[in-house]
Amino acid sequence: MAELNFNAGDYVRFRLALKEMEGRVLESSDNSVVLLKLGSGYNIGIPKENILGTRILRKYNEEKKILELPSAKGLLNIGMVITGGTIAAKLDARTGGVSWLTDVGEFARFYPEIFKIVNVKRIEVPFMIASESMTSEHWIKIAETVKGMLDDKDISGVIVTHGTDFLHYTSSALSFFLKNLNKPVVLTYSQRSIDRASSDASLNLQCAARMAISDAAEVMLVGHASINDDYCYAMRGTKVRKLHSSRRDAFKPVNTEPIAKVWADKVEFISQYRPRNGEKVELDVNFSDKIALVKFYPGQDSSILDFYALKYKGIVIEASGLGHLPVSEVGHNWIPALKKHIRNGFIVCATTQCIWGRTDSYVYSNGRELMEAGVIFLEDMLAECAFVKLGFVLGHYGWKAHIREKMLENFAGEINERLGIDSFEKSS
Amino acid sequence: MAELNFNAGDYVRFRLALKEMEGRVLESSDNSVVLLKLGSGYNIGIPKENILGTRILRKYNEEKKILELPSAKGLLNIGMVITGGTIAAKLDARTGGVSWLTDVGEFARFYPEIFKIVNVKRIEVPFMIASESMTSEHWIKIAETVKGMLDDKDISGVIVTHGTDFLHYTSSALSFFLKNLNKPVVLTYSQRSIDRASSDASLNLQCAARMAISDAAEVMLVGHASINDDYCYAMRGTKVRKLHSSRRDAFKPVNTEPIAKVWADKVEFISQYRPRNGEKVELDVNFSDKIALVKFYPGQDSSILDFYALKYKGIVIEASGLGHLPVSEVGHNWIPALKKHIRNGFIVCATTQCIWGRTDSYVYSNGRELMEAGVIFLEDMLAECAFVKLGFVLGHYGWKAHIREKMLENFAGEINERLGIDSFEKSS
Repeated sequence: MAELNFNAGDYVRFRLALKEMEGRVLESSDNSVVLLKLGSGYNIGIPKENILGTRILRKYNEEKKILELPSAKGLLNIGMVITGGTIAAKLDARTGGVSWLTDVGEFARFYPEIFKIVNVKRIEVPFMIASESMTSEHWIKIAETVKGMLDDKDISGVIVTHGTDFLHYTSSALSFFLKNLNKPVVLTYSQRSIDRASSDASLNLQCAARMAISDAAEVMLVGHASINDDYCYAMRGTKVRKLHSSRRDAFKPVNTEPIAKVWADKVEFISQYRPRNGEKVELDVNFSDKIALVKFYPGQDSSILDFYALKYKGIVIEASGLGHLPVSEVGHNWIPALKKHIRNGFIVCATTQCIWGRTDSYVYSNGRELMEAGVIFLEDMLAECAFVKLGFVLGHYGWKAHIREKMLENFAGEINERLGIDSFEKSS
Repeated sequence: MAELNFNAGDYVRFRLALKEMEGRVLESSDNSVVLLKLGSGYNIGIPKENILGTRILRKYNEEKKILELPSAKGLLNIGMVITGGTIAAKLDARTGGVSWLTDVGEFARFYPEIFKIVNVKRIEVPFMIASESMTSEHWIKIAETVKGMLDDKDISGVIVTHGTDFLHYTSSALSFFLKNLNKPVVLTYSQRSIDRASSDASLNLQCAARMAISDAAEVMLVGHASINDDYCYAMRGTKVRKLHSSRRDAFKPVNTEPIAKVWADKVEFISQYRPRNGEKVELDVNFSDKIALVKFYPGQDSSILDFYALKYKGIVIEASGLGHLPVSEVGHNWIPALKKHIRNGFIVCATTQCIWGRTDSYVYSNGRELMEAGVIFLEDMLAECAFVKLGFVLGHYGWKAHIREKMLENFAGEINERLGIDSFEKSS
């Protein structure tokens, strides 16, 4: 066994029995194993006893240069809101984990390309969290921060950088919270941090910058259109979903077309959008957290309704393809529990768990029975968007007598009335 | 207002103010409206006062011809299990609802084409239900019926017809229940019943018949490969999901390739499969219903674990892309509840709510914390399949000390170890 004279953070080459291996040494809680971050970005654990020789290629050097934000004449100004996620992360060379790119200068150093497209007039960092820790409080904070930037006449549009996993919930929330939108609000992400060879961060951010100065006054998500590093799609915030855990083109528009194809230097609109306008943006962040999202599964009984109806105001159920739940007389029948809780004011909405397509309460008698029990069938709305919308609608006390109408009112393109049969193939 | 002298079931032409409209009159609970089933298959409600004239094109005629099952020499025998769903339904001309094609002769009359491909030696109808009413008892009953047919030396393969919505749960269950499979077991469906112009039933059933006499000893789902009525895919029962509420090609293989392209007259294998063999099929239907499937959403607290841990043995959580739940110190932290319940024997598994891709507990510290708390990360397993597998594993008392190992053992192709980055685009 060779003497191990390297430290966490060093870039090393190991000689093993059958091959050599290069990478950055990470801090490891297991003293018998060396954790190595490979050039591919993946971590591998190597038992120390297998290491026959070591060569330190580069010692760890914690460099920290603070730069001013570059600015060029003739470029339009944008605002940027940084909230966390991989796009605002860099590898912590010693722990193998990530640390945040909250330092504005450092951000500029990692992403120099966007300063050829826009001037970043303001950067705000309301918080830095992983996307799974987002709550409605964070959505509201982001909306308030964006609103402040939209009100600045010198700012042409806003970029929000965000973790990927629950980004489509946030994009839905901003779509509802920012009424009379006058400029582009562009959310973007990356699946791999900027310090990795295969990072998707730079193209996404460049395309987001391009989209932020475009004509579309919509809340949009901009990200890779395919695994190729060539162009992005701009997708409506209410009609987009993360559909792959790790690919660059993880986000797909669902039940609709992308709004535009976006390159670093141009935008090609491919479907209708709300154009840039002179309206005054209105912030409406009334929201009730007393909501839940439940996916129905075979054999599930209706006791979950009792659980949620106790403390919550409403629920979105990912039901069958057309939005059904069991109503048969044999086995589990959801009708009695639905009727009881709905009569007491509990709101029950149904979306399809197929993701693509739309609910329909008219095709089968099961659907008609559920509708008569008071279930609100949410057309082709995505379950995640429906969940956010339910919180928004229930957050408005004045709408109390009109929940159904409000859930079915098309606030921000979340319902596609003219959904064609083809959008499945094109969008998936 | 014209005199309305037609009856439910009649095929009529109405004269309205601006156009004429043809279709079959349905029974309607609303006396002021005539419900008309159009040639497109859709129902429309027409206020009686808008009908200016009526012509009865065909009176309703309840024909019922019972035929013998046709049989031809030189064709291989198959067995068929009919369980309900649109593929075994026909329009009830009077109610506009559906009635079941349980009469074997009637089934043969509606689907004459498959008798040119195979002899249907046995048809069994264990029950007829909508797919949302399926429970594990039904899965077991189907498995037992299929097993009986597989043991018949004269039968080359088995077709199971089934409703679409929860078909992929049933295909997973059969994949686990039928061990040492020796012949093809082919589940198929239709999105539109056979008596509708655009029905996908006939091609699906013909391709299912062709696949049932093929070389693949797998539990497979066979259905339209695209919206064109030309060929089908055979997809592994554990790696398939309904992804569109109404399209013919609603089912897609996820995180894998299809097993084969199937036409009415040929099979073209495109990925590896288990070949037909001489093993004795073993029926293993040990199953625990004390399981649940929960989709995590932003802001959800861990109280749902308390609810399920009270009465259930285990749970599958559709977590973030990589399988994360909130572990931050601010906001909702799931770690304490997870640790408490897992310590008491409650099983918690994580899949990705992205559908495509795989969980990974190593990339971020959040994942490592969850793994240390005892969460089982289920690789690239589909959540629906994982739910069924958890019931299967927990149903085996002898595996009690090895739940993690069993959940991660690849019983029926439910884990794709060699998942490439490309399978997303190809399969979606």
